Amino acid sequence: MNVYEAIHARRDVRRFRPDPVDDALLWRILAAAHQAPSVGFMQPWGFVVIRDTQIRRRVKASFERAREREARCFEGGRRALYRKLKLEGILESALNLCVTCDRGRGHPVLGRSAVVETDLFSTCLAVENLWLAARAEGLGVGWVSILSPGELAEILAIPSGVEPVAYLCVGYPVAFPDRPELETAGWRARILLEELVYRDVYGRRLAREDAP
Amino acid sequence: MNVYEAIHARRDVRRFRPDPVDDALLWRILAAAHQAPSVGFMQPWGFVVIRDTQIRRRVKASFERAREREARCFEGGRRALYRKLKLEGILESALNLCVTCDRGRGHPVLGRSAVVETDLFSTCLAVENLWLAARAEGLGVGWVSILSPGELAEILAIPSGVEPVAYLCVGYPVAFPDRPELETAGWRARILLEELVYRDVYGRRLAREDAP
Repeated sequence: MNVYEAIHARRDVRRFRPDPVDDALLWRILAAAHQAPSVGFMQPWGFVVIRDTQIRRRVKASFERAREREARCFEGGRRALYRKLKLEGILESALNLCVTCDRGRGHPVLGRSAVVETDLFSTCLAVENLWLAARAEGLGVGWVSILSPGELAEILAIPSGVEPVAYLCVGYPVAFPDRPELETAGWRARILLEELVYRDVYGRRLAREDAP
Repeated sequence: MNVYEAIHARRDVRRFRPDPVDDALLWRILAAAHQAPSVGFMQPWGFVVIRDTQIRRRVKASFERAREREARCFEGGRRALYRKLKLEGILESALNLCVTCDRGRGHPVLGRSAVVETDLFSTCLAVENLWLAARAEGLGVGWVSILSPGELAEILAIPSGVEPVAYLCVGYPVAFPDRPELETAGWRARILLEELVYRDVYGRRLAREDAP
């Protein structure tokens, strides 16, 4: 699958078939993540592969609590819709993957002194590599962001100085929907790209020659 | 080019040929970025396409100051090596691209209450999509992280509440080196992937069946 096909067909997946993910495939997508660019070639990432059911149940319970807290951010019909959305696949997916960032690795890091968060940013580049490699392999990935990092660190024995950045559910999806589920559900609309591209300074629209 | 080829051949590029990047190609890689996953379908990103030479000169001067400050983080031979490294291609590349994050867009955002930085993380996923699409098109990208966000915001008229996340140089590279330049220069070595993959909890190595 070529790069554009993977990018345009990738979805945040929440519904999985029970089929397992074999080891060779798992290591291929991890190797793709490890090839990401990183600030000062820091490679700050780590990958916790979670198949254990007991651990996943604890993560799921932590998610349920975080979702209850978050539901209160929304009112009325939005809150009702929020409660109906499927926002994780922790137990149904073949495996969970926590991508971590070791914030002290290789200190001092070239290129990190102006923006200390560039280690977290590098870790996210690795996540997207993994996501696209997974998509090309027919695997679906969902990022569960409704989780307390402190609780997650405790459950996964992540030491101080290392942060959980992404908690991913990975497996064979029931389907790759045509559009993001939050768009289909009417939660939020896609923004027109032309509104987000500027010329030389922020806010001045870049004219698109081939625009209709 | 398939996904794995793009991932494994992508490099952080600092040396460019003078050839321009045509508009249709630019919009294709921007559309790839815009297809990234984002927390709560927030799409927090924006893209400032910088071709203006005066603006680029100001960014370059800002880089030079940040590099001088950062050089002092290193001692002796490391500092001497640091000063020899080419760390940007601001003026030589066909164009510069500042990828921003609007931190207030669509507030409150589903999935962002537990980790407020997930908007920045989403923006980084967009950067990696763009990077891989660019690579598949034969374009090189370099991320210049040695820049003060405050100075950059001032130069590019980025309003309060919006942050510059990535400053990228984009163009046709002189070459795609086999290995990262910082590795070739002896700045830092690649970590073995097997040291970074854990089973169920952090730090407990996951055995690799196909390992030698």
